[in-house]
Amino acid sequence: DYKAEEQWRWAMSVLIGVVMGFLAFTVDGLIKKFNGWKYGATTSSISPGGAGFGAWLVWVIISCLLASVAGGLVSYVEPLAAGSGIPELKTYLNGVHLRGLLRIKTLGAKLGGIAFSIGSGLIAGKEGPFVHGGGLVGGGLSAFGSHTLGFRTKKPSHFRNDADKRDFVAIGTAVGVAVAFGAPIGGMLFTVEEGASFHSTGMLWRGFLATCTGVLTTHWLDQLDFDAMDFAGAKFGVHRDFGLFTDDEANYSRVFWWYFWEVPIFAAIGCMGGLLGAAFVNINVKITMWRQRFIPVSDKYRRHAEVIFVCFVTATVLFIMMAASPCKPIPEAYRVAAATDGDGNGVSDELPGGVAKFEYGVETRRQIRDQYFRSLFCKADEYSSYGQLFFVPLADSLKLLLHLGEVYEQNGTDEFEQHLFTMDALIMYFVFMYALMTWTYGIGAPTGLFVPSLAVGAAGGQIVGRIVRAMVMSTGSEIVVDLHTYAVVGAAACLGGATRMTISITVLVMETTGSMQLIIPLMLTIFFAKAIGDKYSMGIYDTHIKIRGAPFLDEPEHAGVAVDKLKVAEVMADSLVTLRPVMRVRELVEVLTNTSHGAFPVTITDVGEGHNAGDPIELHGSITRNILLKMLTHRVSMFDPEEPREVLYENSEDRDALLEKLKQIPFKSPGVEMIASTLSRREMELSIDLTHFMQRHPFIVHADARLSRAYRLFRTMGLRHMYITPSKPQIIGVVTRKDLVEESAALTLGEKAADLSYEEL
Amino acid sequence: DYKAEEQWRWAMSVLIGVVMGFLAFTVDGLIKKFNGWKYGATTSSISPGGAGFGAWLVWVIISCLLASVAGGLVSYVEPLAAGSGIPELKTYLNGVHLRGLLRIKTLGAKLGGIAFSIGSGLIAGKEGPFVHGGGLVGGGLSAFGSHTLGFRTKKPSHFRNDADKRDFVAIGTAVGVAVAFGAPIGGMLFTVEEGASFHSTGMLWRGFLATCTGVLTTHWLDQLDFDAMDFAGAKFGVHRDFGLFTDDEANYSRVFWWYFWEVPIFAAIGCMGGLLGAAFVNINVKITMWRQRFIPVSDKYRRHAEVIFVCFVTATVLFIMMAASPCKPIPEAYRVAAATDGDGNGVSDELPGGVAKFEYGVETRRQIRDQYFRSLFCKADEYSSYGQLFFVPLADSLKLLLHLGEVYEQNGTDEFEQHLFTMDALIMYFVFMYALMTWTYGIGAPTGLFVPSLAVGAAGGQIVGRIVRAMVMSTGSEIVVDLHTYAVVGAAACLGGATRMTISITVLVMETTGSMQLIIPLMLTIFFAKAIGDKYSMGIYDTHIKIRGAPFLDEPEHAGVAVDKLKVAEVMADSLVTLRPVMRVRELVEVLTNTSHGAFPVTITDVGEGHNAGDPIELHGSITRNILLKMLTHRVSMFDPEEPREVLYENSEDRDALLEKLKQIPFKSPGVEMIASTLSRREMELSIDLTHFMQRHPFIVHADARLSRAYRLFRTMGLRHMYITPSKPQIIGVVTRKDLVEESAALTLGEKAADLSYEEL
Repeated sequence: DYKAEEQWRWAMSVLIGVVMGFLAFTVDGLIKKFNGWKYGATTSSISPGGAGFGAWLVWVIISCLLASVAGGLVSYVEPLAAGSGIPELKTYLNGVHLRGLLRIKTLGAKLGGIAFSIGSGLIAGKEGPFVHGGGLVGGGLSAFGSHTLGFRTKKPSHFRNDADKRDFVAIGTAVGVAVAFGAPIGGMLFTVEEGASFHSTGMLWRGFLATCTGVLTTHWLDQLDFDAMDFAGAKFGVHRDFGLFTDDEANYSRVFWWYFWEVPIFAAIGCMGGLLGAAFVNINVKITMWRQRFIPVSDKYRRHAEVIFVCFVTATVLFIMMAASPCKPIPEAYRVAAATDGDGNGVSDELPGGVAKFEYGVETRRQIRDQYFRSLFCKADEYSSYGQLFFVPLADSLKLLLHLGEVYEQNGTDEFEQHLFTMDALIMYFVFMYALMTWTYGIGAPTGLFVPSLAVGAAGGQIVGRIVRAMVMSTGSEIVVDLHTYAVVGAAACLGGATRMTISITVLVMETTGSMQLIIPLMLTIFFAKAIGDKYSMGIYDTHIKIRGAPFLDEPEHAGVAVDKLKVAEVMADSLVTLRPVMRVRELVEVLTNTSHGAFPVTITDVGEGHNAGDPIELHGSITRNILLKMLTHRVSMFDPEEPREVLYENSEDRDALLEKLKQIPFKSPGVEMIASTLSRREMELSIDLTHFMQRHPFIVHADARLSRAYRLFRTMGLRHMYITPSKPQIIGVVTRKDLVEESAALTLGEKAADLSYEEL
Repeated sequence: DYKAEEQWRWAMSVLIGVVMGFLAFTVDGLIKKFNGWKYGATTSSISPGGAGFGAWLVWVIISCLLASVAGGLVSYVEPLAAGSGIPELKTYLNGVHLRGLLRIKTLGAKLGGIAFSIGSGLIAGKEGPFVHGGGLVGGGLSAFGSHTLGFRTKKPSHFRNDADKRDFVAIGTAVGVAVAFGAPIGGMLFTVEEGASFHSTGMLWRGFLATCTGVLTTHWLDQLDFDAMDFAGAKFGVHRDFGLFTDDEANYSRVFWWYFWEVPIFAAIGCMGGLLGAAFVNINVKITMWRQRFIPVSDKYRRHAEVIFVCFVTATVLFIMMAASPCKPIPEAYRVAAATDGDGNGVSDELPGGVAKFEYGVETRRQIRDQYFRSLFCKADEYSSYGQLFFVPLADSLKLLLHLGEVYEQNGTDEFEQHLFTMDALIMYFVFMYALMTWTYGIGAPTGLFVPSLAVGAAGGQIVGRIVRAMVMSTGSEIVVDLHTYAVVGAAACLGGATRMTISITVLVMETTGSMQLIIPLMLTIFFAKAIGDKYSMGIYDTHIKIRGAPFLDEPEHAGVAVDKLKVAEVMADSLVTLRPVMRVRELVEVLTNTSHGAFPVTITDVGEGHNAGDPIELHGSITRNILLKMLTHRVSMFDPEEPREVLYENSEDRDALLEKLKQIPFKSPGVEMIASTLSRREMELSIDLTHFMQRHPFIVHADARLSRAYRLFRTMGLRHMYITPSKPQIIGVVTRKDLVEESAALTLGEKAADLSYEEL
């Protein structure tokens, strides 16, 4: 039984990975389809040197159509599908419930919506929605497993289901990040850092199993999609198939390098990232405030219209940048005619042997030319320099910023220079993307923040790198500065500045760019980004959590001085509202109506007139508002005190089953007024027996303990309330480590069994 | 004040990293010196075709000399320096104190000893001792910072020092692993997994900062050592400088690959690793039992002699293997004369341009020949095939198993075959190293287990890979099986089977071999190694912890069924030994003499005649045996009840200072009998006042709570004892999440301050 449960946990983790792998593959496929449609239709309406109004119209109409679907899914289907979902999931994992967060409808709206959001060209990434989607899959599958599949958690543990579900939701979020970025370690660390809910190594290991399974599933599906016939001979591990990129056999070791004197430069980039991030957060807060006033969540149409408007502006800006772009000559190596027919145009179409292939699946010069050096409005032998960055999907431009030209850097400066982005394109990109990202985050469509801020940061990093390179060259030194290193470091700095995450994004950026050698510079950069950013604002996610006002408990280290200075007894509510084990329904309804407490102590101590605040009461148990409301709704455990009471259940197993059933009733119970109105007058006069539905041994904390202790308990145990002892509490014994070591506990269990069987004799 | 403390924590983490980086560099340098001496002297006594007795004598004498120093440091300086140190550190981080574990003497004996152990050729690695060393540095520096440097943790927090110290010890262990393997992420995850003491993201982040700093320090020192003049132009990131290997610009992406149909094979390798590991543990337990009987720790000379004997046998076996080795022709590419003079012998000494350099710092064919294809007892154009594996330091043979020939695999089969190890060499290596590793673990010298078990596993993996390769080739398929992948997977399987660690060794192996692309196969392999291994034994570290009998609390998931079935009240001790707040010294001495409890409840409730076991008492506080012994030793807080009592201290700050001082008194306090004998008859009749020295708000747990709750609290909060409420406890209030959210806590603090100033008026 115990073993079977363990095995189920493992199986469930694998299942979450597989399902998320499939979902990620599907969403990616959708995005690819949308992009193909949009760019295909627009490009075919472009005539070099033409006016381009027609092309703009095609471009904008398709974009807005897609955005309209994304916005519609949020406005009319599920408002919780908006935004990234990371603040919501973070709040949930912190131990606060949000209604509707984990419904299947939300899953559809979120993951469907993100495909449309990204397809529409909104400045958004997929990772936040994938985190949310992963959480939904985790929570959903575990519930499914628990009930429909006949898998049940151990019965005597009243609160276990909640905790179990949270565990699987946590695993799901980890898988979500992992499949979005192809980063199994980063995904797991993301949840460790943001979820703070991995309380054991076993749990950590299950999470890792799940993230690996998820990433493996996407890799295999990608390979099957690419070439199903050669699946047996497909080498895994040789191409960089990291979520964002799939390069073929690139020369990893030659891509990223750095010098010891660059460390202070990286630190400075980190500081800039922190400042940029803080500015982003502060501006976004202003926009969010404005939005709450003029485009409230309740106003569906206006919210929907905003999404379309933002998309319209974004699409137009990108198009104008592309159309107004200066033209640059195409690098010599790719000056084959941009024909669509076939081969045989002067320069050999074959790539030279020594050069690594440019991109997985790209094999000829022409393909490279058509894909990366498009002419658009330029002449045949030139390419659109801004179009290279602005007229590609966001994730692709990020990839180009991080990697374009890297395989050529060894071949001499001339060749290399031809691959460089122009400085003005980089600056334009940096400015516009930063502005659009700040504006977009918070609209009524699924939007993630990682990819936009990585892209902005990569552009910024390239700019800094170019300056450093120029300075080094001006000294006559032969040292070659690696611009790609700067792009990666800049991306990390910007993401760190916006999110204030630490270890998980260090590893995420490393995994997703394949820059294992940069782990230390990345760490330093993010360290400074966080240190500086924290001076001027909170992270974007925490900010949005705060705006929503959820009772979120931050890291103990950031809890402020107060928790160290105050005692528990000093913060507790002044008056204690108690219930009696058996009471009139009417009284219960009154208590529920007059207070908004989430849980009530059950006691027989009279807390009426003669009772002073602070006098101890005898605690029989604790019962949550939620259970009480359900009991009232379903008339559970009510009886007429005048009549002989019917037996509610035969034995403890029946009771557990009943309790379980009560918990399974969907989350959203109506308010107490609603329920009260359904209660007949006769029912109001019945008695209700709470004894079997209360939690009999809630957490207890010493009145004189520092608040920080309660804080840590709340966080690590995922509590919602704790009871406070008097200053000099009554105790009946002490339990030590030795009592807990397995052998000794097993021994006691043996004795207990012996006692029982003796008694039964 | 609060901020300064935070900054100190960060600075301390960096400092731990830097110090460990220096120490690692120093130890590595020592090992290199020893190896240079040993191999140099032996090789120069070898004459091809000669008898080799003289060379054996040189070899064995040098080996035993070095082993004698390593053993001597343990036997005569510090017995705790023996073995890997991981079980001890794990126990410490779990919340159990071991005397002398964290003394500076231990640091010297351990890190000095490991250099001699490895230099002597014992089958041992450096990671365990580095973990221990790191813990020592962390604990030592934090204490140093606290007291000598004038840095003090906040005063009102009575138990904070212990927790703080544990945090820094945890960071130190992480750095130890990181610098031993050049693996910053793996090191950090090691401590997360084994230490279970990273309770917050801030802590995690500090740990990561420390591991990165440590690794960076070693990289920089290595580079300075290699070529100090070119430091500014030294590219970091391009060569694989991962702890165990420093290859130059190898073609990462071409090194490791795998196919989807290999997944079940990897799983099977994992299962074999689990079985091998379980056998290793079970045999080692037998040997340890035998050792405890015949070579007890107390018998210094015998213990010392054992080390020398083991080294003698090891050295002799290795020498015989080398001397009896078959000879193989040296690969064509390296057939330059093995001259020592210089250049110009037919084949050009230059390496062909396209071929990546073989090894960092190795530039010519001759160097490669002299280093990797040594003739030893063979003819001039042949090399010693066993000598390639047996007559090199253990870490080097591991490296060859994982990497030899990898840069040539692309160049055609003939060339490649020349670089293969012979099957018989691999089998010999596998068998002998496994046997020697099992015998060596547990002797009285510092010895780590990672490198030996990785080496055994790599050999095993290569063997399996060769079989698979032969089978694939026999089908006529053109699929090329990557033997290096098998070596890495095999290494991970064997390490996983022996240690039962999971996520941390997955990442460690990935980082240390640079096989980022293999992370998923590695995970799967280790998953199966652990699953199968756990069926037949515990991990080697847990086994040794258990043999020592420390009250170690395992993962809650492995705590067994008992903790879920039992209530807290059912395991508590039957009788409660209490102290009174003010009592006679004589009585206190009696209680201490008659019981061995580690902590006592302080109460004024009379637990004499009329008191039944299980009746509640009023808890005023809790005091540890340790503090009581110190109070008695230093005659603190004693007074003559007949006379007016002198004031012990003026205010609460003085009291804190006194308490602090008491805690600083070195750990090892003498037994109560010793102390009692120093107390005069008059002193025995004095009273002693405990009120100011007890902890006033110990942890409290509900009598009816399941034992698993107490278990989790003990682990996450690092407790040693908890007090138990009655079944229906008295409470005075409830505290909820909302009360704890920063704003509300700060508000209460403000009110409190206002109240105080009002009162003061």
